[in-house]
Amino acid sequence: MGIDSETGEYVRAPNRFDDRITADGRDGWPAEPGRYRLVVSKACPWASRALVVRRLLGLEDAISVAVADPIQDEQSWRFTLDPDDRDPVLGIRYLHEAYHAADPGYDGGISVPAIVDIPSGKLVTNDYPRITLDMSTEWTAYHREGAPDLYPEARRDEIDELNRGVHADVNAAVYEAGFATRQSAYDDAYRRLFAKLDELSARLEKQRYLVGDTITEADIRLFTTLVRFDAVYHGHFKCNRNKLSEMPVLWAYTRDLYQTPGFGDTVDFDHIKRHYYQVHENINPARIVPLGPDLSGFDAPHGREALPGRPFGDGTPPGRHERGGFP
Amino acid sequence: MGIDSETGEYVRAPNRFDDRITADGRDGWPAEPGRYRLVVSKACPWASRALVVRRLLGLEDAISVAVADPIQDEQSWRFTLDPDDRDPVLGIRYLHEAYHAADPGYDGGISVPAIVDIPSGKLVTNDYPRITLDMSTEWTAYHREGAPDLYPEARRDEIDELNRGVHADVNAAVYEAGFATRQSAYDDAYRRLFAKLDELSARLEKQRYLVGDTITEADIRLFTTLVRFDAVYHGHFKCNRNKLSEMPVLWAYTRDLYQTPGFGDTVDFDHIKRHYYQVHENINPARIVPLGPDLSGFDAPHGREALPGRPFGDGTPPGRHERGGFP
Repeated sequence: MGIDSETGEYVRAPNRFDDRITADGRDGWPAEPGRYRLVVSKACPWASRALVVRRLLGLEDAISVAVADPIQDEQSWRFTLDPDDRDPVLGIRYLHEAYHAADPGYDGGISVPAIVDIPSGKLVTNDYPRITLDMSTEWTAYHREGAPDLYPEARRDEIDELNRGVHADVNAAVYEAGFATRQSAYDDAYRRLFAKLDELSARLEKQRYLVGDTITEADIRLFTTLVRFDAVYHGHFKCNRNKLSEMPVLWAYTRDLYQTPGFGDTVDFDHIKRHYYQVHENINPARIVPLGPDLSGFDAPHGREALPGRPFGDGTPPGRHERGGFP
Repeated sequence: MGIDSETGEYVRAPNRFDDRITADGRDGWPAEPGRYRLVVSKACPWASRALVVRRLLGLEDAISVAVADPIQDEQSWRFTLDPDDRDPVLGIRYLHEAYHAADPGYDGGISVPAIVDIPSGKLVTNDYPRITLDMSTEWTAYHREGAPDLYPEARRDEIDELNRGVHADVNAAVYEAGFATRQSAYDDAYRRLFAKLDELSARLEKQRYLVGDTITEADIRLFTTLVRFDAVYHGHFKCNRNKLSEMPVLWAYTRDLYQTPGFGDTVDFDHIKRHYYQVHENINPARIVPLGPDLSGFDAPHGREALPGRPFGDGTPPGRHERGGFP
């Protein structure tokens, strides 16, 4: 990530590691329970997508998770939440160790989500849009009974197209607004963001989910941005035409998903707030973390069960989240 | 103003010039129409109190106003909104020239509101809490017909006590939250602020104004902070438990005053937003001015005319605000 010095626009760095873990193992990485470790920050919306998908599909036992400290240091993501500041499975202190195990000469950014091959300690992929889709399509042999189809074949074109718009004008736009160093770059991102939110609000007024009548990948990608909106993007990133809680349809949609097993139980507002407000010294030099907002509204009734829609299609909700060996 | 390096608390500088303009002229400054110029920034809540009081009392013809550019430079408040970057009446380019005409050796801060003696060009007073009270009590000979009594003798103790609490926990607390450089200083200011807002909300639930049944100085001092709340204090100063617009009683109270002649017509959200977001580089380094929030709600019906209360007591509202020689 960085700022384009010409336009003052925030630009997310391209991904560097894009091997795929597949059912047939054609890239050398076969889907295999217990072999891989998913490294996330619970602060990060891109990483949190993978936490939601893993929960919905029941991949907790197949793919374990390492949770990085929400506050990076100059060596980036680190395992300072664990005993001896080391991930107990990978045995490393910093995520960059897995990047450099895979490519000793790598000098790019270190990002989450990242999937690491446990036996070799090498990073396999940090290709976040692919990671979740491959969980849906390449790990089917290990899905729980009743796992939903989050990327149904008949709907993929529609999901992909919707995801492109949501990525450009929601997921990335909040960062572009927040990190802009020129007013024109900020203004542009803000306008695209709220135009898209208005469009999504209209779409969701009469239908419970974005595509078809079940939860899909499209909902997950929108959710992980919306759930952070009032806590960080509204103030810290100046996305402040209104709070999410002032947009009745999107706010009810977000609460509905938040209250669905597999969504809200992956959300950690403490990690979210501390990460954004303490790491971005360029926009918050004193690193003060706001005490607000009041987030109790996430648990309020949303009323959207009255709309047509079957959250898990022919499947079932995941079991209650157990706080145990796997986060 | 400054930051206490021990506690990380924001401390407003004491006023330095506290001569009073009085009916009897005992400090050498008799109340006299046309003699003084009130220098304000429309961004500044402390200065805006004087604009409201001047309008309510009909002192527009007696005391003229100079409006400083909302963006100070390294020499502080300046008259760059005027032709030739000079105040047309005082003939000065910077407010500090009036400070130094009064005291050539002065090296303290330059603040608004400030009242300048036009013939000598000398600053008379920047003692903001006194300025508005003296307009009410020392300029009575020049009040308009039907001017309200904003500081009624029988209620002064109650008003003074209320003002002390509002100053400490609202007017100053928002700055203390925003300028804090330590988390504990921020937390303390935030908690005091919202505790006091809750208390004021309870007080105003059944009564239209803070003291008695008419508008008083107490309402004006609370109003100039509340009207800025969602535009700047909520995001920029991290006073974000909720927006003002999420506190139904205080939001209706603020709209009621905003829609009362003499209040809303002194409010300039463009000056307010540009000042805070562009001047405080310590908390907003890129100086981006947010496009939000949507402020259209200020004109929505407030319903508080149903409560007992007589806005102007035995007096009348001021006339429509004419945009002319006097802002």
